[in-house]
Amino acid sequence: MKRISEYASEVEAALLALGFSERHPASLYAPIAYALEAGGKRIRPVLLLMAVEAFGGDTSAAMPAALGMELFHNFTLLHDDVMDDSDTRRNRPTVYRKYGAPVAILSGDTMLGEAQSLISNVPDDKLRHVGEVFGRMAMDVYKGQSLDMEFEHRDDVTPEQYVEMIRLKTGALLGACAEIGGLLCGCDDKVCAALRAYGENLGIAFQIEDDWLDTFGDAATFGKPIGGDINQAKKTFLYISGMAAGTEEAKALRIAMELPAGDMRVRTVTRIYEKMRLDESCRKAAASYSAKALKAVKSTGLPDERLEAFKYLLDRLSGRKK
Amino acid sequence: MKRISEYASEVEAALLALGFSERHPASLYAPIAYALEAGGKRIRPVLLLMAVEAFGGDTSAAMPAALGMELFHNFTLLHDDVMDDSDTRRNRPTVYRKYGAPVAILSGDTMLGEAQSLISNVPDDKLRHVGEVFGRMAMDVYKGQSLDMEFEHRDDVTPEQYVEMIRLKTGALLGACAEIGGLLCGCDDKVCAALRAYGENLGIAFQIEDDWLDTFGDAATFGKPIGGDINQAKKTFLYISGMAAGTEEAKALRIAMELPAGDMRVRTVTRIYEKMRLDESCRKAAASYSAKALKAVKSTGLPDERLEAFKYLLDRLSGRKK
Repeated sequence: MKRISEYASEVEAALLALGFSERHPASLYAPIAYALEAGGKRIRPVLLLMAVEAFGGDTSAAMPAALGMELFHNFTLLHDDVMDDSDTRRNRPTVYRKYGAPVAILSGDTMLGEAQSLISNVPDDKLRHVGEVFGRMAMDVYKGQSLDMEFEHRDDVTPEQYVEMIRLKTGALLGACAEIGGLLCGCDDKVCAALRAYGENLGIAFQIEDDWLDTFGDAATFGKPIGGDINQAKKTFLYISGMAAGTEEAKALRIAMELPAGDMRVRTVTRIYEKMRLDESCRKAAASYSAKALKAVKSTGLPDERLEAFKYLLDRLSGRKK
Repeated sequence: MKRISEYASEVEAALLALGFSERHPASLYAPIAYALEAGGKRIRPVLLLMAVEAFGGDTSAAMPAALGMELFHNFTLLHDDVMDDSDTRRNRPTVYRKYGAPVAILSGDTMLGEAQSLISNVPDDKLRHVGEVFGRMAMDVYKGQSLDMEFEHRDDVTPEQYVEMIRLKTGALLGACAEIGGLLCGCDDKVCAALRAYGENLGIAFQIEDDWLDTFGDAATFGKPIGGDINQAKKTFLYISGMAAGTEEAKALRIAMELPAGDMRVRTVTRIYEKMRLDESCRKAAASYSAKALKAVKSTGLPDERLEAFKYLLDRLSGRKK
């Protein structure tokens, strides 16, 4: 099988070939080109192509659908950045901050239209099924974002509810990528469901690991300053697990999170997390979803050598600092 | 053929039966229910159903697609109201004002997802074609909104450019409704193109008439206070035609539009429009697009009795005060 970096390069070239930087009107397409230039790991299209190759399908024919998934992901970033009032993404101003909310909304809508059109570039006998998977996925992602915003105003979110939120917000798209890869190869329902379960659990493991890295990671490897989540008082897996403990330490955690944003808050909250051993339980949780993902993809009956890429992706995304 | 009001009632009932007010999460669906409760003429689904009936198709089977077009329309209203910072719509707070921008964006996205799902509720052999018409239409509508926003910052927009903008923003959706109605009846390309031309020109005529009504209409019939466009210094067909004249009166018009918002500005601008005979030329322009629409639908070869509903819709939308 190809290496993940090879898939990512192909995706990058194919994204560029869509030519958004030259499309008209520029007011609509230049922000799309800007957003895509930021790069990223292109994990979603890579996963779709990996699944297609693993099941003996035609990866070139699957490229438009793969690009559609990447465009969908980027569309959600454009809209999320408006909703979350985010200034930067990948060390650059967000489309929202650079071009304003109206452009971020409308270029996002346009990107979604492009995604829908690309994902429809599949054989006639697959069109309805792929469209349905894509449509359900989109609804799941919106529900996830809705819950995420709701949780910011609530103090009683359970770890289970948090996991369900990230399953919807992050897992559903990765699940749909793997599932559509299988669909394009004519895999049966059982295999498609297993592929979806792989992607969903990969997404959950990735998000929990990301929460851990934001507090306990290494700034150089992580690519963002450490402690950002604490400074923004974000409801992460760490914080929600801590609050759910209901102990004296949980009370201390709540108070620490209300300290003025800055070094003192970051250090105090981190210390309480450590005291509560949340760093360990967080990594354990990530590992358990990673294991679920592996079990799911193994259940497809793929031979071992074809499982390698799926394992590698899991290691890379959910164990970035093991 | 059924009367337009009968179609509208059926659409209203079918929209209600979608049950958005009971769907979960309410944070996502309650705003959709709120937006749809506002009512409206439901012209878009009515036009789709009219076309289906005119060509002998099954209007019940076409209802989901018709509802999809109405949901698409309402999705654009949700997002446009954020982009345009609009407070009220149909005498109620906009979703944006009532629930905030994040909800208006995300519920809008959800509405678009529902629209896409409903529009896919067509026979397998029509799915790709209907999806393509819907997709192209969506892109046209986004381009139209993009131009509309761009025009607000420009002082050199020609009447032709303005018409192209409203063709995209308003005409494309009505055109797609009529075209999809034809597609569902297996009409050939020529007839489908004629139906699209009917819808597009209906949309243009409607928008120009709307511009006229906002200045010269009757508040009771129009349903909005007269002079709103002048008070907001909106680039309407009247203003753009006036500025394009390049005369001394055009200069006066520009100055008058810079008066403080209020009665004095409305009366002065209106007086200049009259002096330039723009009230007449505006109505003539609306009538000419209305005539184009009629010519297009006649070219389908439908017998006279089946043209009645199309004529009635034209009279109602583009000649609301003749």
